[in-house]
Amino acid sequence: MADTLAQARHDLAIANRIVSHEGIIDAFGHVSMRHPTKPDRYLISYSRSPEVVEASDIYEYTLGSELVTPLPKGIRGYGELVIHGEIYKARPDVNAVAHHHGMAILPFCNTGAELKALYHMGAQIGSKVPFWDSRDEFGDTCLLVLKPEEGRSLAKALGPHWLVLMRRHGATVAGRTLQELVFRTIYSYRNAELQLLTQAQGMALSPLTAGEAKLAMERNLEPRPQARAWEYWSVRLKKAGEFPKASRAGKRAKAKR
Amino acid sequence: MADTLAQARHDLAIANRIVSHEGIIDAFGHVSMRHPTKPDRYLISYSRSPEVVEASDIYEYTLGSELVTPLPKGIRGYGELVIHGEIYKARPDVNAVAHHHGMAILPFCNTGAELKALYHMGAQIGSKVPFWDSRDEFGDTCLLVLKPEEGRSLAKALGPHWLVLMRRHGATVAGRTLQELVFRTIYSYRNAELQLLTQAQGMALSPLTAGEAKLAMERNLEPRPQARAWEYWSVRLKKAGEFPKASRAGKRAKAKR
Amino acid sequence: MADTLAQARHDLAIANRIVSHEGIIDAFGHVSMRHPTKPDRYLISYSRSPEVVEASDIYEYTLGSELVTPLPKGIRGYGELVIHGEIYKARPDVNAVAHHHGMAILPFCNTGAELKALYHMGAQIGSKVPFWDSRDEFGDTCLLVLKPEEGRSLAKALGPHWLVLMRRHGATVAGRTLQELVFRTIYSYRNAELQLLTQAQGMALSPLTAGEAKLAMERNLEPRPQARAWEYWSVRLKKAGEFPKASRAGKRAKAKR
Amino acid sequence: MADTLAQARHDLAIANRIVSHEGIIDAFGHVSMRHPTKPDRYLISYSRSPEVVEASDIYEYTLGSELVTPLPKGIRGYGELVIHGEIYKARPDVNAVAHHHGMAILPFCNTGAELKALYHMGAQIGSKVPFWDSRDEFGDTCLLVLKPEEGRSLAKALGPHWLVLMRRHGATVAGRTLQELVFRTIYSYRNAELQLLTQAQGMALSPLTAGEAKLAMERNLEPRPQARAWEYWSVRLKKAGEFPKASRAGKRAKAKR
Repeated sequence: MADTLAQARHDLAIANRIVSHEGIIDAFGHVSMRHPTKPDRYLISYSRSPEVVEASDIYEYTLGSELVTPLPKGIRGYGELVIHGEIYKARPDVNAVAHHHGMAILPFCNTGAELKALYHMGAQIGSKVPFWDSRDEFGDTCLLVLKPEEGRSLAKALGPHWLVLMRRHGATVAGRTLQELVFRTIYSYRNAELQLLTQAQGMALSPLTAGEAKLAMERNLEPRPQARAWEYWSVRLKKAGEFPKASRAGKRAKAKR
Repeated sequence: MADTLAQARHDLAIANRIVSHEGIIDAFGHVSMRHPTKPDRYLISYSRSPEVVEASDIYEYTLGSELVTPLPKGIRGYGELVIHGEIYKARPDVNAVAHHHGMAILPFCNTGAELKALYHMGAQIGSKVPFWDSRDEFGDTCLLVLKPEEGRSLAKALGPHWLVLMRRHGATVAGRTLQELVFRTIYSYRNAELQLLTQAQGMALSPLTAGEAKLAMERNLEPRPQARAWEYWSVRLKKAGEFPKASRAGKRAKAKR
Repeated sequence: MADTLAQARHDLAIANRIVSHEGIIDAFGHVSMRHPTKPDRYLISYSRSPEVVEASDIYEYTLGSELVTPLPKGIRGYGELVIHGEIYKARPDVNAVAHHHGMAILPFCNTGAELKALYHMGAQIGSKVPFWDSRDEFGDTCLLVLKPEEGRSLAKALGPHWLVLMRRHGATVAGRTLQELVFRTIYSYRNAELQLLTQAQGMALSPLTAGEAKLAMERNLEPRPQARAWEYWSVRLKKAGEFPKASRAGKRAKAKR
Repeated sequence: MADTLAQARHDLAIANRIVSHEGIIDAFGHVSMRHPTKPDRYLISYSRSPEVVEASDIYEYTLGSELVTPLPKGIRGYGELVIHGEIYKARPDVNAVAHHHGMAILPFCNTGAELKALYHMGAQIGSKVPFWDSRDEFGDTCLLVLKPEEGRSLAKALGPHWLVLMRRHGATVAGRTLQELVFRTIYSYRNAELQLLTQAQGMALSPLTAGEAKLAMERNLEPRPQARAWEYWSVRLKKAGEFPKASRAGKRAKAKR
């Protein structure tokens, strides 16, 4: 079980770096996963940019977003932990969460224009992308999701969906597994890029039908395309010298498998 | 003949990596070529991202898209093999095929707007770019071309042309040689980028005349520009450390020439 | 105190390289800071591109933009020093200044369209972004800010704000600290990118309210996000092999702390 | 004098690589300079992509675009040599010429929309950018400038200016020195990028006045900014491992200076 946890932290470090390396997360944003053996806990880095996260930076939180053991001196947790904790509470089927301010998603977050699935990979956005505006319930804030009630409100807006846009702020993405989360974060982002490119032409959009969207999302989440994409992103990290170091515990776990 | 095959697999690995490195193919998409000595066979990687394909990943298929010898345990073929097999069947003059979802081509694939040759290199799109919509014949699908009848329908839509757009999905490109295919894939993509940039200005397009398009396409496919472009893309792969390893058989073939 | 100065020059070299590496400054543009112990002096490189500035390239100027000691033979100072000197004179609260011609800010500099904070990070532009047109007071010039009276006019236009757009030329950014300056330069630029992307859709913008903008700017300037962003940009410089060499004096200073 | 020539070939290789590395020239396009001591000759690589040109690839041509000594077996000259030869003939003040199909210039080449200087660096386009359409005089061609009369027609269109757009094809740029040429090629391209970005907003352009454009162009061509930009681009080549090898003759020339 220690090894399962070590592997989870290593995988989470990889996931943090993939979404950074593929151009979606910059200095800010964060990626978490539910604890692999304790469903009432989640794992997330201390307050560092996802691009530089190591397995050893990752700590354990309760679903109330309280640290299980205190952080070492001199480091602090992310400010917006409640995004993660409140979604894990509300959605037992969700095992990984990412929050980002990627440039191509922001025009939709600002204007409220609806995201639509425009190609098979874009089906990852799900059948509906809800919209959350902190101003509706909380008035003028710094726009960050800092208080438990803000996190709960966002989780409620997400509802049974997989992606929620946050007005004048960014996006939060959910997945049943860490791989699915990374896949959805990247391809919902590519679909946003495509929608921007298409709309800039003044062209009329041709979204997928509900039936196509459902079939395409299911197909994309099958093991073969999931494994292929994960290999691709991992190799790209390795070639760039950005693959996270395996912790000793992680190496042991790997050797045993 | 063993050496010819080894060389073909090495060249095909290079082609896979060039279209990835030049920004057109990401995790998905695939590139194949007809077998160099058996015209009723084609060569294609097992299901891996083109950016990481090695010569040793490439297997032999019949034109019915059946494996000639089984794949090693643990790996699987691409899901959309019939795109390749059905085009090779329908078009004896085609010896290489690429399928991709490059971002700049997708707005055309989504809206159905017509691609037009806007500069001499863009003449590679051919005199006409047909459009195929899986919905017309097959209704709601996951949009992938998985069944033989879907592949045949796509090949029929391609007809005598060199590029076919697939609604809400991507593009399929054909070439008489592997080098021509890579050249066409890249420059039809650049022409799409140009058309997007131009249309975003609300400017009126000035396409090539039919005469210009024909002369420019022929000129671009002469040995000198073809060799020059192939050298350029290969050197760029090498500088990035992405050139595929030469197989031992490939090295022997090279030494003999 | 010598060590404080050495550390300041090292930090200023890092700042120069960060804004270059993040894509905002090219061959031209410059970054300065007020002298750490003599508030009537400022530090800036000799006339080199910020991407290549080393600590040892940085010299001391009076607020009248006169060199404190002559430059070595063969090198010259920047032409637009008065931008820096006149802002330090007019604004005792400003301790760092950047001037750039980043591509995403230039459409606003050309047309006079108003920059608006469109997401929480964009709050860094401040409550108002004044506009300065050299033509108003000085008629036809080469557009550079070369004369003291031009620098004074620009500093007056900046007023109590943090960013001033210069018509047909570029932007000048101010910060209370060097880190704040880098942060504001980068995130005001990202906000400009976002505004361009959004406007290109013909979508209506939803700017932050004045209250949101104030709260978001303050939050972003707290030590935790500032440290996190600085670590991120520094690590990126290091990974690219672009982190400036520590001078011997700088190393001593570091060892002592 | 042998050393002057060696140095010229080395500088020309650097210039070829700079315009490639800065994203303007891809597999095609070419850069030449007038022979440093024989004004009736010019220097240009054999038919290779500028990104990979070495000093030793550069050969000597008459202004009639005839080789002074035959090329080694197996290599050929560029097809469009007459662009260079005819401009050197017509313009004794021009000592360097570049021809390219950079993406940001192509929308102007296609539509005929007028390029305008929108910021001080953009003044490099000159007071007027003439437009040349091969169709006017030569009807349907492959669009390349292959015949002496086509080159003469283009040179005539360029007239006393510094940049000429070629319809459905690309741009040709001229400079009094090789450094000026590189500077103009890059900053006229940046200005085109800016014009595209600005127009995509539907914003009204604010071009430089004729007076501003003249003063800004002159200022930019002074030795200080020229040296600073050349250092910047050269260092970037070096950091990327793309700086051309110095030939032995070139090294001797350098040692002597």
